[in-house]
Amino acid sequence: MSTIGWIGTGVMGRPMAHHLIEAGHRLTIFTRTKSKAKQLLEAGAEWANSPQEAAKDKDFVCTMVGYPQDLQEVVFGKEGVINTIKAGSIFIDFTTSRPTLAVEIANALKERGVLSLDAPVSGGDVGARNATLSIMVGGEKEAFIAARPILERLGKTVILQGGPGAGQHTKMCNQIQIAGTMVGMVEALIYGVKAGLDLETMLKSISGGAAGCWSLDNLAPRILKGDMEPGFFVDHFVKDMGIALEEAKRMQLSLPGLALVHQLYISVQALGAGRKGTQALYLALKHMAGMD
Amino acid sequence: MSTIGWIGTGVMGRPMAHHLIEAGHRLTIFTRTKSKAKQLLEAGAEWANSPQEAAKDKDFVCTMVGYPQDLQEVVFGKEGVINTIKAGSIFIDFTTSRPTLAVEIANALKERGVLSLDAPVSGGDVGARNATLSIMVGGEKEAFIAARPILERLGKTVILQGGPGAGQHTKMCNQIQIAGTMVGMVEALIYGVKAGLDLETMLKSISGGAAGCWSLDNLAPRILKGDMEPGFFVDHFVKDMGIALEEAKRMQLSLPGLALVHQLYISVQALGAGRKGTQALYLALKHMAGMD
Repeated sequence: MSTIGWIGTGVMGRPMAHHLIEAGHRLTIFTRTKSKAKQLLEAGAEWANSPQEAAKDKDFVCTMVGYPQDLQEVVFGKEGVINTIKAGSIFIDFTTSRPTLAVEIANALKERGVLSLDAPVSGGDVGARNATLSIMVGGEKEAFIAARPILERLGKTVILQGGPGAGQHTKMCNQIQIAGTMVGMVEALIYGVKAGLDLETMLKSISGGAAGCWSLDNLAPRILKGDMEPGFFVDHFVKDMGIALEEAKRMQLSLPGLALVHQLYISVQALGAGRKGTQALYLALKHMAGMD
Repeated sequence: MSTIGWIGTGVMGRPMAHHLIEAGHRLTIFTRTKSKAKQLLEAGAEWANSPQEAAKDKDFVCTMVGYPQDLQEVVFGKEGVINTIKAGSIFIDFTTSRPTLAVEIANALKERGVLSLDAPVSGGDVGARNATLSIMVGGEKEAFIAARPILERLGKTVILQGGPGAGQHTKMCNQIQIAGTMVGMVEALIYGVKAGLDLETMLKSISGGAAGCWSLDNLAPRILKGDMEPGFFVDHFVKDMGIALEEAKRMQLSLPGLALVHQLYISVQALGAGRKGTQALYLALKHMAGMD
């Protein structure tokens, strides 16, 4: 079993850390709001007062924070991981963050004899609780092999996608596909409402064929019930799309569909629904149709 | 068994008509290019020289043509179905066409004692050949019940969606969802290429989760092989999206995602790929990225 420094215990980080404690690893936790680590400390984890304290002398150091700037602070900040992480250990970041930041971290840690993996996940809080996440990994093969037992305790699809940043880039592909799927879904639903269709009956006709998608199966029924509770936060999706657009711009790649969906989701935030689930895109379309 | 006038024997109409001949119905065929009806005539169908001749004294009159203007001509034209269709018979249009035209046809035929159904399908040529289509039906319940044995010979999901036009509106919902799914897919792929990912490996990470969709499973692998052959023509998809946008405008509904995808597909036509499959959207994105 390994010693693990774990930083970030939000809706994703908490159940993930819990699986590792259950597997017998010795975790040392830091998170901004100590109360969010309560369960984990009760389950046997130790508390650290800073990222650098959590990272000190561990086999693995894992981060699962909210935004790229949080990650930057946790790694490079005054009390950052980089001050104490030991040579020969492995750093794993599960945050969905900037691919270029993943490369910067990999380079900086390598100078200290530390290999790092960017390992963003998909599958949401349910996937985190059930350890059925898809984990998209970027980094050196040696680090991937060493980290595999930990990663496979947390996810069911664990794939090395390439060197540093490749995990983040893969996650961007995931979010870009979802952006399209979501706008198609909510526009189809609002069209159906306007055309006077019974939406449940309409969905029976279309969900089994070429229009079929996860969103239609899982989120459309929530919209029909008026359930906007978050599986995945609008605010986080806006962040992810922003990262993808920034990276695409850097690569001189025009993604008009993603850019439009990003804008529509900013409108969802403007309607006060940033902490709702991504299905709240429906609210923006409804608003544009003068239907609220 | 019934007598059926059948108009239109393209990639969809031909296998559909064939199923009905096999089921023992007596078909009389008209199509613009007689050679396309050859197989059906050999299988026992009779030939008619015009829509009105095909429609004369039949129990059912079915149409499966290309565009709304073709349907308009076939029904209301100089040699149109409306001249000869007998009271008590049922008219079924399988074309993906304008919902408002479906209502016009229903009203005009009702005056002649004929009930009509708009019954657009999804499932493509494969669905037509295997009789696994989803058939989205609009019209009166009485007509639906009478036509059901015929519809169920052609499709596996046969659902009455509402009155005249509701079948077409449902098909529009289907196409709107696909428009979003497609733009998400091709943007995800092109991003992956630019980011230097191995696309097959990337797809393994994303296709099982919240990004999962029919397009990703069925069309992405074709794009990876450079296979742009049509399952569904770009030209027909542009037509369908144009109808949906026109109807949405009439209903004062703004569909920015659909409008954008429509524009991108017009660019696919401009690149000479109108007779390619819908996955050719990838070509437009590639072109915009200066990658060809």
